[in-house]
Amino acid sequence: MTQQQPAAAPGQHMTAEIAEQPEVFAALLARRPEIAAVAERVTARRPRFALLAARGSSDHAALYAKYLIEVLLELPAGLVSPSTTTLYGAEPDLTDVLLVSVSQSGGSPDLLEVTESARRRGALTVAVTNTPGSPLERAAELSIDIGAGREQAVAATKTYSASLLALYLLIDAIHGGSGARAASLPELARSTLDSSVDAVEEAVQRYRFVSRMVTTGRGYSSATAAEAALKLAETSYLSARAYSGADLLHGPVAAVDEQTGVLAVCSEGRGGAALREVLDVVHERGADICAVGSAAGKVSAAQRIDLPACAEEVAPVLEILPVQRLSLGLALARGGDPDHPRGLNKITRTR
Amino acid sequence: MTQQQPAAAPGQHMTAEIAEQPEVFAALLARRPEIAAVAERVTARRPRFALLAARGSSDHAALYAKYLIEVLLELPAGLVSPSTTTLYGAEPDLTDVLLVSVSQSGGSPDLLEVTESARRRGALTVAVTNTPGSPLERAAELSIDIGAGREQAVAATKTYSASLLALYLLIDAIHGGSGARAASLPELARSTLDSSVDAVEEAVQRYRFVSRMVTTGRGYSSATAAEAALKLAETSYLSARAYSGADLLHGPVAAVDEQTGVLAVCSEGRGGAALREVLDVVHERGADICAVGSAAGKVSAAQRIDLPACAEEVAPVLEILPVQRLSLGLALARGGDPDHPRGLNKITRTR
Repeated sequence: MTQQQPAAAPGQHMTAEIAEQPEVFAALLARRPEIAAVAERVTARRPRFALLAARGSSDHAALYAKYLIEVLLELPAGLVSPSTTTLYGAEPDLTDVLLVSVSQSGGSPDLLEVTESARRRGALTVAVTNTPGSPLERAAELSIDIGAGREQAVAATKTYSASLLALYLLIDAIHGGSGARAASLPELARSTLDSSVDAVEEAVQRYRFVSRMVTTGRGYSSATAAEAALKLAETSYLSARAYSGADLLHGPVAAVDEQTGVLAVCSEGRGGAALREVLDVVHERGADICAVGSAAGKVSAAQRIDLPACAEEVAPVLEILPVQRLSLGLALARGGDPDHPRGLNKITRTR
Repeated sequence: MTQQQPAAAPGQHMTAEIAEQPEVFAALLARRPEIAAVAERVTARRPRFALLAARGSSDHAALYAKYLIEVLLELPAGLVSPSTTTLYGAEPDLTDVLLVSVSQSGGSPDLLEVTESARRRGALTVAVTNTPGSPLERAAELSIDIGAGREQAVAATKTYSASLLALYLLIDAIHGGSGARAASLPELARSTLDSSVDAVEEAVQRYRFVSRMVTTGRGYSSATAAEAALKLAETSYLSARAYSGADLLHGPVAAVDEQTGVLAVCSEGRGGAALREVLDVVHERGADICAVGSAAGKVSAAQRIDLPACAEEVAPVLEILPVQRLSLGLALARGGDPDHPRGLNKITRTR
């Protein structure tokens, strides 16, 4: 781990933490037995519904988990609006409900309140955090430590991808799997980071002066698109907004024109295939498309960041890596310091 | 109803449809007995979990309904990701689940597929549409016609607010209410439209040249913020993005600066009160805040659009009215035609 330096170079923490991800994934895969033990306790309770509680980047990890739960476990699932508990004091009966709270710090007061309240009302609560011993971990009945090590950059990178992988391993184990589809991720992450350097640098040059971007994806990759928009907005101060490929065709495509950069997350699989018809329309509008993913080569795009192929359900773990590098590169190119973006704190004290 | 004109003045349909809303609300309130009959059948089935399916503007009406269901009915609720059904073929057991599908056209193929599939798998299905006899209405076991009349402008206005009101009346009736808190909405809508003209016109002048806006709200008003961002983006082609007040403090506040217009939806009640602490931070960053709502006067803002007071849970029905006018006014001031924004179709054929 990098130690805090009094006069750190801009982006040094974010740079280091992006590079650590292959090792973080390997360490997490080594802890599959612990995760399987948590999965066993979940299975024993036979939940019928799932709820996911998170804020910020973790909310995008929760969105990924929602897709996994709906598709692999075939359970209906929803993202919690914490304010119905924290502001309006709602106290639903949560018997048969699995509540998964995702927070790298384990310190957000609203997630703590949601988790405590859900546990009292009968939910099986699981905390996914990067902070053993945190209030959230103690409040939940079960917990998974993503073990990503201390994250010093304010912009989340390795804690986001590690949350994705931990959630995949948990849900796959509940589904009876052994995490086999994730086994090659450390190696694929390493080759992704190595092989995407030039394409990311070209994208940094291309978007140096862009003021607005739209990010898009379908299926599992919707989570990557959401996280990409946040990462670009919080580090590079550009206006970035994520749309599911389906929603992009409804209304907001009107706001996509020659001045809009479109970052399209397009991996092999059903989500990527469904996105292509959307991108045809966006391309016709004259938008500048940068396609990221293992199916990037199949899209009419001005710029491509190709990624190695992997199972569609774990692709988001890889897809985000070049996007983190792009956010970092753009922030530095624009004179910012992504380790200390203006206006951001690591833990937010909203209620 | 306005008839389709071959050479329509820009925005004439949207102008007319915004003005119709008080009458649409009155007509919907007169049909409370029909809605109560639907509510009775829902109550008899004792759902334990609610799912909401929608796209575009209707998705924001669904978000509003999610808050109502969680707070008034104290049922856990989630927004459906249609692609888990349409792309990945998930077939969860939906016994004890209430699925509410919201679509003005009743013609979106993905919502139809989600509704048919949910009904087969045991869910009680309710369609909320503006199109009696539509495929969605026929697919669902129960249905509510919002009765807003034909909407000719591509940007949804009266069908959005009527969907909100229909969902409120349904959920309030399931909760045992008689819709009393909504009874004055036609009159309040009329006075809102009359009294907000000057403030909206000032806001149009203020944001004539803005290129990016952030919209924000908390609690029930989160839905208004989401719809406001979509309305501004699709009619005025500006980059607009909604954040819940809580998320705005996490990351994206870094993207809010002196060049960002912030539209803050702030009504009397717990949501509005919780938003005020967020706005203090945003104000410190030098952002230009336009506060809309019955508590707009309590916020440090450059611009205010005051609305009459009403119960917090029905405030979104009023909050959106001046925002629709603002979107219309900005579109016209920028030389656009909000009745025919580029790139938009009324029904989207995504799967």
